[in-house]
Amino acid sequence: MGILVFDDVEELDFVGPWEVFGVAGRIFPGSFSLDLLSVRAAKVRARYGLSIDGATALHDAGYLDVLVVPGGAGARQVMKDSSLLAEIRSRHRAGTLVASVCTGALVLAAAGLLEGNRATTHWTALDELRSFPGVHVEHERVIDLGQVVTSAGISSGIDMALHLVARFLGPERAEEVAHRMEYEPWASLSAGKRSARDVP
Amino acid sequence: MGILVFDDVEELDFVGPWEVFGVAGRIFPGSFSLDLLSVRAAKVRARYGLSIDGATALHDAGYLDVLVVPGGAGARQVMKDSSLLAEIRSRHRAGTLVASVCTGALVLAAAGLLEGNRATTHWTALDELRSFPGVHVEHERVIDLGQVVTSAGISSGIDMALHLVARFLGPERAEEVAHRMEYEPWASLSAGKRSARDVP
Repeated sequence: MGILVFDDVEELDFVGPWEVFGVAGRIFPGSFSLDLLSVRAAKVRARYGLSIDGATALHDAGYLDVLVVPGGAGARQVMKDSSLLAEIRSRHRAGTLVASVCTGALVLAAAGLLEGNRATTHWTALDELRSFPGVHVEHERVIDLGQVVTSAGISSGIDMALHLVARFLGPERAEEVAHRMEYEPWASLSAGKRSARDVP
Repeated sequence: MGILVFDDVEELDFVGPWEVFGVAGRIFPGSFSLDLLSVRAAKVRARYGLSIDGATALHDAGYLDVLVVPGGAGARQVMKDSSLLAEIRSRHRAGTLVASVCTGALVLAAAGLLEGNRATTHWTALDELRSFPGVHVEHERVIDLGQVVTSAGISSGIDMALHLVARFLGPERAEEVAHRMEYEPWASLSAGKRSARDVP
C-alpha cells in the first residue's frame, strides 16, 4: 500500500490514512505495509512547512494493492504531470485500487479514472471536479466504486482509510483501529452509512 | 507556537495539531505561526516510518506561546530525558502554555506540570498516568487548566488544537477551521462540551 506525497501536499490528507494503516498494520500484523511514494524527489515540503524525507518515486515502486492520492494546493501541479497521470492510469489498469483524499480527486479525474463515475472532493473543489466531463460529483464523506474510492476534504482521509480497513479486514477490526486512535466519530459516522457505502 | 517531535512519535499526534494551526494561520493571517521542534536532532523517524527533517532543537527555539507535546511509543524515552524535562519546566514557568496529546501527558507528568491537577491521556495509558503522585486522571477528550492542557489519544490532538483556536480566536473561527478541514465531528463534540471545557 502506497501513499503519494508531493510539494504542497496537505499534511493531514496523507497523514490521516498513514496513521490508520500504520495502526492497523501494528495491531493486525501482516495486514498492511506502508510505502511513502513521491512524484519524483525523495524529499517533499508539505503545505504548512513539514519537510518529509525518504520517499520512493512512484515509478520505482513495485506492485501496489492500494495507492492513496492526497490533495492540497500542490495537487494543482500534480494533475498537470502527464507522466504521473499515465503511471496512475497504468497501475489502475493493472489492478491497483486508487483512492483519493480531498483535491486528490482532481488528480484521479485528470488521469481519467472518474469518467462516468460518482466522485467526491473537498467542498471548495466540487465545481472544479464537475468541470471534468462525465464525472457525477456528490458531496459525501466516502464514495467507493470498488477499484476507485474518493473522499471529501482533509480529515475525510481518516474515514476513507477506516472504510478500506473495514473492506479488507472487516468492520470489527476497523472499529478496533478507530478505538485505538480514539477516533470515536467513526462509530457514529459509520453506523448510519455503512450499508450505503459498502460495495456489493 | 511549537510542536515537539522525537523518534517514534505517533504521526497523527503531532500532525493533527500541525494541520489545525496551519489552516488557522492560513485563513486568519498573523494568528499562528508554526515551528517544528525536536529534542536534539534535526531529523526524526516517526512511529510508522515517516521521516521528518528540518526540526529545530527545543533549546535553540525562542519564546513560545504554546508548546505541543505529542505522544507515541517514543514518549517513554522522552519522559526520561532530564534536560528536556527541565527545559519544558522552565518554559512553562516563563509563561508558555504546554499542551499534550495522548501519552505526551506522561512527559508533562514527568516534568512535574500535572501535580495537583486534573489530566487525561490515551485510554491505554490512564493507569500509568495515575502512577504519578498527585495527578487526578480522568478520561476526557480535552482538559484545559489554563496554562496546561492535556488531551486523550491520537486523534484527540485535533480537538485539543481546535479548542486552543477557540480560546485564542473565538469559537466561530474554530468552527471555520474545522469546516475547512471537513472535521464535522468538532461541531457535535464541542456543542455539548464547550461550556464544560472552557476555562473561566
